[in-house]
Order: sequence, then structure tokens, then C-alpha cells
Amino acid sequence: MRIEEKIAPTQSIESDLRTVSIFNNCDNNFLSTLAANAQYQSHNKGKILFLHDDNAERFYIVKSGWVKLFRETLDGVQAVVDILNTGHIFGETALFENDTYPYSAEAVEPIEIISLQLSDLKAEIERNSQLSLSMLQSMAQQRRQQDKEIEHRSIQNASQRIGCFLLRLVNQRQEGPITIHLPYDKTLVASRLGMQPETFSRALAKLREKTGIRVKGATIEMESLTQLSQYSCAACSSEFPCTDLK
Amino acid sequence: MRIEEKIAPTQSIESDLRTVSIFNNCDNNFLSTLAANAQYQSHNKGKILFLHDDNAERFYIVKSGWVKLFRETLDGVQAVVDILNTGHIFGETALFENDTYPYSAEAVEPIEIISLQLSDLKAEIERNSQLSLSMLQSMAQQRRQQDKEIEHRSIQNASQRIGCFLLRLVNQRQEGPITIHLPYDKTLVASRLGMQPETFSRALAKLREKTGIRVKGATIEMESLTQLSQYSCAACSSEFPCTDLK
Repeated sequence: MRIEEKIAPTQSIESDLRTVSIFNNCDNNFLSTLAANAQYQSHNKGKILFLHDDNAERFYIVKSGWVKLFRETLDGVQAVVDILNTGHIFGETALFENDTYPYSAEAVEPIEIISLQLSDLKAEIERNSQLSLSMLQSMAQQRRQQDKEIEHRSIQNASQRIGCFLLRLVNQRQEGPITIHLPYDKTLVASRLGMQPETFSRALAKLREKTGIRVKGATIEMESLTQLSQYSCAACSSEFPCTDLK
Repeated sequence: MRIEEKIAPTQSIESDLRTVSIFNNCDNNFLSTLAANAQYQSHNKGKILFLHDDNAERFYIVKSGWVKLFRETLDGVQAVVDILNTGHIFGETALFENDTYPYSAEAVEPIEIISLQLSDLKAEIERNSQLSLSMLQSMAQQRRQQDKEIEHRSIQNASQRIGCFLLRLVNQRQEGPITIHLPYDKTLVASRLGMQPETFSRALAKLREKTGIRVKGATIEMESLTQLSQYSCAACSSEFPCTDLK
């Protein structure tokens, strides 16, 4: 497996960090320190970045590609916690979990990430209440999304959950015909939604029947979002267009 | 419906606040201010404390009884977010959600709660980085629990999920015969686990068959935790005894 670790111009990392929402209120000094101890990394598909319960010294920001966060039983059955792309942070909550990662992380395609030092983040949180507030806001939003996920597993059927997943990929205020490209392969979409591949196939077929969407490989087309949203959002406590899930 | 609002001795509220883990590192000044703007409240079963998306000015701590947090679809289908008892905080995340509550809250039996002012908490978070850190730790733990919940809905069957719920009610290091009392009625346990009452009954019967537990109304007995933990924790990424779920 090819692994590249490049020491990149600190300035370039610094400007990447500026685009990350939790760092919006941070000053230049902190971002320079963080950047000075950071590296760009490129990894191939399948690379395990860290394992659940590993001792944590780094956290990461996705620059390109998709990263899967997951947990595994002793028998090797996987539960996907999340699948993240550009701009998302992961591994940072280890700070509040006795410095161990609460999940494993794997590249699901070739990825570029920024690797950062947890101790830099910790020091700044203790110093800068604006950063703490931003992190609290970000965690509250994540919590809200997880609540929705649990809600959906209680009251939506499998087809409605696929519909909701599709709706999150588009601008929900768009009118007229829509084309959606699945961001990663269907097996991964299924495990993201906690479904067996067979359940996913059956549920997608039913969704096609109920809403008139057309599925061609990884491309999904429809005349408008109306039928899809009416079908999926009927079994949800949020209103369409949705501000709870992104 | 009978509602009592008592103005209680501030000192007594202050000593209650001292027992709440996120306030461990807070100074007397802050706890006095918080207590000065707080009240004890008693409410009957069925009392709605606030509704999802209501404008939020207060947060709450449970002093006795059970409080249900939930969301509802337009058709009135409910999804239970959590069911909390003594010492638990709720409504506080409204601070990070544009001052609106992310769920509704209802007394599921006669309760006593402490009602506190959100603006007091907000001011102290901005001033006291130790409080921010405690809140980040508390939210990270909640997130971990939600991750487990989502994991269990993917890889455990309904009987295993009831088993896990029972294991959380006991000291898992206890040896020999065990008696467990369900903390609230079975219908509520079912909705806490996102199951229809019929599914819950069938799954409980299967759990009895698989693990030899004896169910008498709201009391459950077993010779030891061994069979129950072997059966439930086989489909979980955490080890028994479990530190992830409480």
C-alpha cells in the first residue's frame, strides 16, 4: 500500500484551517501553531487511519475523498458511525474520551487529509472560550443529527430512509427535474443506513414504485422533489425543506 | 391538572446543583447566581414542560421521577429521544440551537424538577473554560451513547436490545442471582427502544427462551448475568462489563 506523507507549506495548511467552521473565531497565533504541527497526508482506499480505543494524539480534517467512521464486534460485524468528506473533522472528540478514539477510521477511496495535534486543540480550548462555544455548537448539531437518525430508525421504513438520504444530497429548494449522483457505492450507502445490501435493493425498488424516481447505476433522476419528499418526510418530525440533517 | 411552583430556599437549590457533574468545577458565585434565578417545580404525570421548537429561556434538572424527551410527526407518531431521571439535565442544548428546544419534554409520572435560567449558563460558559470543558465532555459521552444506540439498531435483534436495556439497570460486576425492576411501564420501555408494543412482547418472550430469565410483571429475575450478557453483548462492539452505556 502506498502512503505519502508530505510536509506541506504551513501557510497553505493555515488557509485550509481558516475554512473550517469551528475555527472561525480563532486568532492567527493559534492557527499558525496548529498549522506548524500539522501535515497533509494522502492515503489509498482501505487505509485504516486509527482503530477504536487506540491512544489518540492526532485529529484530522478531510481535504478530499470519503472517510468511514465505524465500530466492529468481536465477530467482525461492522456498524458505520458516519461517512465524511471535505471540511469535516474527525478524531477530535478523543479529547473528551480519555484520549482514546471512540471509533475506527478508514479511507473508502483515495483521500487527502490534514493531520493535526490534539494537544494544540486542547490548550486552545482551555484558553479560548469562543472555540469552546464553537465546538459545543458543532457537537449540538451532531447530536441533533444523531437524534434524527435514531428517530428515523424508529418511524421510517427502509424506503423512506433511502429517500431521506437522497434528499440530503440536493438543494431542497430546487424546482423542476433533478439528477442525483450517489456519492459512494450502494453497498456503502446501505451500511451507512444500517441496512443489509438485499434490504437496500428491495427498499430502493419500492421507493422507485412509490415515487417514480428513475435509477440508472449510481444516477437517480426525477421530475421534481415533490413525490420523494412527500413520501419520505411524512414519517419524520422535521419539515421539508429540512434544516436538521445535512 | 395540579401544578405547583414553589420558591424554595436558594441554599437548598445550590446544594442540589453541586451534585450535578457538569457544575463540579464551578465556583460559588456562579452557583449562587444560578440558584437565585431557579425554582423547584412539581408536576403531575402527563405535564408537557416544553415543545420541540419552542423558544427556550429555561433549562432543567430532574430531582425525582422520569421525564420523556420526544419528537412527533405531523400525524402524531412519536419518537422517544431519551427518558431521564434524577440528576439529569435537559433543555440546555437549546443554547447552541438558536435558543429553541430540539425536542419536547413530558413528565411520565409525578416529577420534581429544578428550573434554571439559560442566560445564566450562557454567561458562565463564555467566562469559565472549565465549565465549557465539562459540557464538552458531557456532550461527547451523550454522543457515544447515541452512536451505540444507532449501532445496536443496525446489528442487534430486538431481544438483544431488550437484554442490553436490562444490563444497563444493574451493577454489571455483580455475581449470583439478580432481580431487576423495570423503571417505568413496558409500553414506555418499548418506545424508548423504538419498538411497537407487539414487537417488544414477542422479543421479550424470545429473550426469556434464549437466556432463562424469569419475567413477573415489572420484575425480572435470573440466576446470574452470564447468559444475558453473552446473548446481548455478542452483537455489540463494546465489551462486557460495559462502560459506554449508562
